[in-house]
Order: sequence, then structure tokens, then C-alpha cells
Amino acid sequence: MTTPEIQTNASEPGIVISVDAMGGDRGPAAVVAGMALSVVKNPDIRFIVHGDEAVLTPLIAKRRELSGRFIIRHAPDSVSMEEKPSHVMRHGKDTSMWGAIDSVREGEAQAAVSCGNTGALMAVSMIRLRKAPGVSRPAIAVLFPSRSPSGFNILLDVGADVRADPSDLLQYALMGASYARNSQNMARPRIGLLNVGTEDTKGRAEIKEAHDLIAAAADKNNYDYIGFVEGSDIPSDRVDVIVTDGFTGNVALKTAEGTARFFSSLLRAQFKSTIFARLGALLSYRALQKLNKRTDPRRVNGGVFLGLNGTVVKSHGAADATGVSAAIKLAFHLAELHFTEKLVARVASGSTAREDAKPVHPNE
Amino acid sequence: MTTPEIQTNASEPGIVISVDAMGGDRGPAAVVAGMALSVVKNPDIRFIVHGDEAVLTPLIAKRRELSGRFIIRHAPDSVSMEEKPSHVMRHGKDTSMWGAIDSVREGEAQAAVSCGNTGALMAVSMIRLRKAPGVSRPAIAVLFPSRSPSGFNILLDVGADVRADPSDLLQYALMGASYARNSQNMARPRIGLLNVGTEDTKGRAEIKEAHDLIAAAADKNNYDYIGFVEGSDIPSDRVDVIVTDGFTGNVALKTAEGTARFFSSLLRAQFKSTIFARLGALLSYRALQKLNKRTDPRRVNGGVFLGLNGTVVKSHGAADATGVSAAIKLAFHLAELHFTEKLVARVASGSTAREDAKPVHPNE
Repeated sequence: MTTPEIQTNASEPGIVISVDAMGGDRGPAAVVAGMALSVVKNPDIRFIVHGDEAVLTPLIAKRRELSGRFIIRHAPDSVSMEEKPSHVMRHGKDTSMWGAIDSVREGEAQAAVSCGNTGALMAVSMIRLRKAPGVSRPAIAVLFPSRSPSGFNILLDVGADVRADPSDLLQYALMGASYARNSQNMARPRIGLLNVGTEDTKGRAEIKEAHDLIAAAADKNNYDYIGFVEGSDIPSDRVDVIVTDGFTGNVALKTAEGTARFFSSLLRAQFKSTIFARLGALLSYRALQKLNKRTDPRRVNGGVFLGLNGTVVKSHGAADATGVSAAIKLAFHLAELHFTEKLVARVASGSTAREDAKPVHPNE
Repeated sequence: MTTPEIQTNASEPGIVISVDAMGGDRGPAAVVAGMALSVVKNPDIRFIVHGDEAVLTPLIAKRRELSGRFIIRHAPDSVSMEEKPSHVMRHGKDTSMWGAIDSVREGEAQAAVSCGNTGALMAVSMIRLRKAPGVSRPAIAVLFPSRSPSGFNILLDVGADVRADPSDLLQYALMGASYARNSQNMARPRIGLLNVGTEDTKGRAEIKEAHDLIAAAADKNNYDYIGFVEGSDIPSDRVDVIVTDGFTGNVALKTAEGTARFFSSLLRAQFKSTIFARLGALLSYRALQKLNKRTDPRRVNGGVFLGLNGTVVKSHGAADATGVSAAIKLAFHLAELHFTEKLVARVASGSTAREDAKPVHPNE
């Protein structure tokens, strides 16, 4: 249902992002605040906002910067963080999440953003957008702060599926390479396969099999395979894309987040421990702000769903306005690049016709 | 072979630690320096030092504090970091690593310490010390810096085996609880099972099965099972022992180490970035030193092998004197507590006679 009293510019030139406004832990106010932040920085953006109209209309009305840049689509239901994906697949048609994905399916939005339940969002995305040809398991990729020149490495899968066969890990390598080429402008990304050691003899049998598959596909797919990497290499500058199954990737990502938060809290506590330390903190304020900015998880917020016929960005459930705005920025950027179309073409050529795949140019 | 010219006090009262002096990345000098550090802090310690006599004799002679507190056992061979465990098992009889483990097997040392190749050390430990009755897969446990009152949580397995069945995960819970009770003096440790979410419906099938087994064994084995935990909980204060398979645990541990190192290097760089920041760093020097001490991986150096008939501590390969000394301290402490004997009794009662196991008192 479209609110007739609100002017729609969504059909004008520019990129339209469909937003699930009801999914996050902080509720729709944080999502709307994030949309407002995005529009200030990027006037070319338009939104289709899915959620409870009675809640959204006054929230959006308060944000003048959004005026004329959005449509509200009423959704009577929303998906809770605890809901089972299977339940949402069967009974979720009236949720804001379902609506946000359907806007991409219908082609009225170029990308969708949600702060909601990851499992449900992946399930709804799979049934509404369908897997891209040749993809067996889609993956979720995140940018991980690192020593690399771009400031980030790509880690995938971080939780689309708890299992991955060797052929899935090969597809993750192809999709991760494509994401690196497009989002970070790399001609030949360096791919590493996560393992418990860098020696060829280590690890599980399926990982050794994936190792051979990824190595064999490197030349035809324009990436450098650097072999096994360890957990300590994820934030390093020796690799650009780290491939692993969704169970291991999820644990690695959350362990890093927990470690960084723990480290920051110790640092804050120490800076308050003595009068000298307080003075020191004051003098170092700007330097510490830069450190915060560099490691602030809100600024790299957004897991990208790879391997679907459509672009979906999962924002952190606890994202505030800054976090939501980062996820929207990422969705906009990928839509602008026609990233999903390029990825679909890449995977189709890389995995169904491995033997005769043509060499592909950087940025596909 | 015993060097006759060196006085042996190893038969005196006190605890004897057998040391593989050849295993680490920094060579025997770092190991001997670590032994010397340990003796200064703890005069009750004695060593049987395994390695190349011609190298060790002059190194040890330089350390007066070690005088009369050691025996050198000549080993013509050593195990390199690249060597395959299977090769060491077949051809490793003359290595310093083998000798260090055999000193425990023969009862002349109460615990062994090595900085060598983890896979080889576990393989040699398994064939020479044998698995404890009822143990299917031994595990390696580490102390992970955390918000818990003790300052650490226990994480296992971090790499003894890349696979774990549900019954292995139950044994890890029993062994981890025993380690927490003994090393950290906890009456009822809180056990968590690592997963990709805290909801009961998430994760792999074998993890859900382990979930039920660990929950059912909690009361009889004097621990509290708090259910699934995520990577972000590893450094938290809501859990004392985190149970996982050796693949996931190894990746989590190394990801945390890499993240902490990355964070520290960014902090150091920022403190050098401006004159104000430099001044600030000077003023906060003591506070930052405390932070370093709290998060210094060298000070929590030592993975303990659980589930064998003997105590083995694996020191980090790159350990310096401080790191080696921390591993020796841990080995000494465990030997003093007769930890391995208690653990063996615990696992035997916990897993072979689950139904009629008697309640066990804290500290077993």
C-alpha cells in the first residue's frame, strides 16, 4: 500500500533502496535516522520504506531531509529476532522484511537493507530472489578491518550456512574475488582459505579438496590463490579475501568483535585510572578518535548476501543511525556498480564452464 | 645420557619439569633464559633439559641461578616446525621432544614443556603417555584474557584434533570444568558451547546433540551449563569454559590474537602521530603498561594437553624468555596440584559411569 499523501520520487533517476524499517534491535527510529544521515551525504538516493505506516509516517515527517525522497509501504507484521527462518518462510508474507525483498524482486528497488534476523532474511531472500544460476549455497561477506592498503579484508561466509562443501568454498572464492574487484577496485585479489595451519598437510579433508579446486581455478578467474591462511591472518595485509564455511566465519567475526570491544574497554578503564592517564588521554584525544574511527564496527556495518538474483545488505541488528547509514551506503554503492549482475555472470562462467571460461577483465 | 659433571638435584624434594629445549622458533637460548627466569621466582623447581648437549651446556653454564637445579639429557635430533606428526611418530625417538615426554612417562618429571610443533608434540604425547581411560580425543586448553573476575576464560579444544563428535564435546566440557576448578579454584564453573547463535535451534546437528549431552551431565559433574555461546562471548564474563572442536577453537584463538595485535599496532601508530599524542602517551605510560601486561599473550602462554596420562604444556613457538617462563610456571602449578591424576579420575567417572557417578567436591 502506498501512502498517497507523500510525494514519490522513487521513479526519478537515481538509485532506490528498499528498507526493512522494523527489523533492528533499536526499532524504526534508528533506521529512519540512518536513512536521513544517508540522504544528507548522498542526494541521489531514494527509499521504499517497509513497515508499520502509523509508526513510520510521523518518524519520517520529522526528518525534512527525507522529504520527497521516499515511499512508505505499509506492512502489518514484522519479523522478530527469535523467529525461526522456516516459520517466516511460511507465514512471513505480510512482514516488512518480505516486502523489502519483494521490492528488489519486482525491480522497483536496486538493493534491500535490513537490520533484522539474519537467518530469516537469508531464507526470505532465497525464496523470493532465488539463487543465481550455478550457485549451490549463497554466502554472507563482510569487510574486516585490516592492515591491507584499503583498510579492509573480505571474509566470507560469515553465517549464511553452517556447512560448506569443497565446491561451495570454490564458489565463495569466485564470489569473494568478484566482490573485492568491484567494491575495492582490485585487479587481482589475493584469496586465502582459512585453516588451522598454513602447511598443505593440515586441516580437514574437505578443506584440502577445496584447496586444490581454488588453486586450479585461479588463473581463469583472475585472482591469486595464496593457499591456507590462519585466524591471525584475517586482519593482516597478506590476503584480500578469506574463504571459510559459515560456522567458522561467524565464530571468527564475532570473536574479533568481542576481542576489539574488550580491548577498547580495557583502554578506556586505564585512561581513567590515574590523573596522569586522564591528562594523557586528553592530549591524545584526536589520535584516539582516529583509532576509534578506524576500528568502529558501525562504520563497516553491512554483510552482503552473495549468490542471489538481487542485492541484499544485512545491517547489524544493534545498528544505530551511523551503522544503518553505512549499510545503506554499501547497498547504494553495489547497486551503482551493477555488482550483482556482474557476480551472477562471473559465477555462471566460473563454475558451470570451468574449462572454457574466458579470461575476464578487472571489474568484470 | 646424563652429563656426569653436573650435579643433579632432580631427585630432591620439589617438582621436576622436563623441558624440550630445541623446539621453539627462537632456539634453545630463549628456552634456557625462560628456565632461569622461572628459577628466580620459584626456587622449588628442578629441570631435566632435553637437547643438544654441546649447545645446552655453555648456555646453561652462563646462568648461575640454574646451578645445581638441572640435568641435561642429550638428544641428537630435534623436531622442526614443518615436520609431519606421522613422521615424528615413526622416526622421532632421538629427538629432544620425545625425550621430554618420556621423562614424564618414566615418572622422573611431573610435567613436560615444549615450544615445538604442536601436531608432533600431541602425537608423541599420545603414543608415549597414552590417552586417559575413557578419553576418545585429547584436547588443548588455553587461558583466554576476559572480563571474568579471574581475568581469563578457558577455551578448548584449540587444535588437538580438527574434528569432535558430540561425545568428545561432552568430554571437553568435563575436562574444561576440571581445569577451571583446579587452575582457577572455581567450585562450579560455567560451561558454554560455541555456536553461531544462542538460540537452541541454531547450528550444526552434532552441536545440538552435544548441547543435550552437556546439559544432562551438568548436575552430576558440578558445573553450570549456560547453553550456546557465540564468538563475542569468549572474552566475556558470562562464561568460564568455552567448549568447541579443535578447528573452530584454533581459528577463534588465532583470530583474537591477530585482532589484539592489530589493535595494539594501530594504538602505537596513533600515539606517534602528533606531538600532542606523544605527550599524551608519555603521561599515560603507566596506565598503558598495565594494559599491555593484562593483554600480553606471553603472560598467558601455555596450551595444556588434557586427557593424557601425564601433564604436557605447549608453549607458543615464538615464545621468548617471559613466555617460556609462563609456560613453566603453569606446568609447575598443575604438577603441584596433581591436576592430571584428578582429571583422569574425573573423566573416568564422568563418561564411563555417567549414571552412577558420585557427586564430586570442588577441586575434585
